Amino acid sequence: MTTQPPEFDRIARYFRPLAGPGALDLQDDAAVFTPPAGRELVIAADAMVAGVHFLPGDAPNLVARKLLRTNLSDLAAMGADPLGYLTTISVPRATPDAWFAAFAAGLADDQAEFGLSVLGGDCTSTPGPVSLSLTILGHVAPGEAIRRNGARVGDEIWVSGSIGDGALGLLAAQGKIADPDGFLAHRYHLPQPRLGLARAGLVQAAMDVSDGLVQDLGHLCRASDVGAEIIAADVPLSAQARAVGDLARCLTGGDDYELLLAIAPANVTAFRAHAATRGVAVTRIGVFTHAAADVRVLGPDGAQMVLGTGGWSHFT
Amino acid sequence: MTTQPPEFDRIARYFRPLAGPGALDLQDDAAVFTPPAGRELVIAADAMVAGVHFLPGDAPNLVARKLLRTNLSDLAAMGADPLGYLTTISVPRATPDAWFAAFAAGLADDQAEFGLSVLGGDCTSTPGPVSLSLTILGHVAPGEAIRRNGARVGDEIWVSGSIGDGALGLLAAQGKIADPDGFLAHRYHLPQPRLGLARAGLVQAAMDVSDGLVQDLGHLCRASDVGAEIIAADVPLSAQARAVGDLARCLTGGDDYELLLAIAPANVTAFRAHAATRGVAVTRIGVFTHAAADVRVLGPDGAQMVLGTGGWSHFT
Repeated sequence: MTTQPPEFDRIARYFRPLAGPGALDLQDDAAVFTPPAGRELVIAADAMVAGVHFLPGDAPNLVARKLLRTNLSDLAAMGADPLGYLTTISVPRATPDAWFAAFAAGLADDQAEFGLSVLGGDCTSTPGPVSLSLTILGHVAPGEAIRRNGARVGDEIWVSGSIGDGALGLLAAQGKIADPDGFLAHRYHLPQPRLGLARAGLVQAAMDVSDGLVQDLGHLCRASDVGAEIIAADVPLSAQARAVGDLARCLTGGDDYELLLAIAPANVTAFRAHAATRGVAVTRIGVFTHAAADVRVLGPDGAQMVLGTGGWSHFT
Repeated sequence: MTTQPPEFDRIARYFRPLAGPGALDLQDDAAVFTPPAGRELVIAADAMVAGVHFLPGDAPNLVARKLLRTNLSDLAAMGADPLGYLTTISVPRATPDAWFAAFAAGLADDQAEFGLSVLGGDCTSTPGPVSLSLTILGHVAPGEAIRRNGARVGDEIWVSGSIGDGALGLLAAQGKIADPDGFLAHRYHLPQPRLGLARAGLVQAAMDVSDGLVQDLGHLCRASDVGAEIIAADVPLSAQARAVGDLARCLTGGDDYELLLAIAPANVTAFRAHAATRGVAVTRIGVFTHAAADVRVLGPDGAQMVLGTGGWSHFT
């Protein structure tokens, strides 16, 4: 009688209950599913590494939810609806069952909240830090995926939610700044994917803000061959972020997972009404300009702000 | 003028040339594609970590090809045809451009060989070993995906290629055993996905052998609720593996990436003819039995062999 190594028992115990249609109970080499009729598929993958994308001591259920939510945020940026996901989990050999139980519980919570299920994945050991990846699948009406390259000169620059909480939340989670009500750390640990906000016909271009507002706005400008001018004072900050008072960090820090959107002036009224129906605060922060790929941030005195860094980089 | 961090330049330089239809030049938050009309989609994801799944000194182009091929092997097991893939790459900050160039060159070689292209992914830093993931997408005619649960008592057990080269190849690559012509190390570094071999109508069940023949046969038996009896002397070994003479390691070691198949007696002639047209050697090694989930390996003396380990485990 052959026995199964522990990874198979763990997959059966913790992940099989999360499996949805097509996952074949996670018992086969791959998942098989029929794409939704008449829809295009949208797919993205992200990696998360302990000590880089999350703190080694972060609760496994929050790590799982952040992994799923950062990928859902990519679907939100494209105007897509969630369908399913695959995840690979590489952890030290001594990782206890409780870690897997908590990780799976986090996925279960967000599967219920966002309406998707696991299709497959892999579970391996690593001699290094916990290393995760997640591939997310979504769907969108043909031709209605929102891209980064559709912004035009004169379109307004809008963002969802508040900017900078994620970067400040990292400092709070590290105990480097005060966070009396825990709001900032919560925003770092549990981003809110803005699904349903970006919709074709209302939005010219969109992306999610993951590496810092200024850097990401630069990416959108390069893709659209336009420039951008934003008013620092108009960038929405939470009350908690205002209390910290580090505007430059808010403008350049990562981990917001809010949407950055290009809205044609003629669509602003309809877009704001749509955002209201979704219950998402949206704020105009500037305008796209002719100055190709140049992002200008105007400070309180009307002069261009000089920001120390353009945003997060893995390799500088 | 904002500048881009190096990861974006690397994606543009090394990975954008690999992007296919739907990848949107890797410039957006996600890829968008239209599924092949009238087909089911097949999707799987695997992780590979330096020091676990490959040797830290392995050439990056071979690591990339092994990453892609082990996932193609999953498609092969399901009887699916390749469509595209996403990959996440987490490497130490000091990783030079040459590593990315070689890694991308390996992907380019196998994209050409197997007819698929990259749809997306992620590139991050890690304080630990190189950690990779790949999600592969394929397609199959509706209802024709091959599963693990279709083996029936009396079906014959067949394998493709030769068994054990991967496990011996790891030892060879580590300099622990002789490998005069480099064949064994080559088999470890560059598995051969057996795409097109498993086809509905000819094959009752299939899976790829990645964790060791005996362990993987156990998985297939559990899924099909049957037992298995194989004749050790009938398991196909390469001449190089025979020269090493470690039969137990060949039967239980991982990294074969050959297919394990259940063939109904009535289909054997047609299956062999099909394999011949694909240019793949196939060998009958035993039969599925009533003994649920029990895998018996009969040795040269006709007695059941006692094998020291059932196969690779990440956590024991």
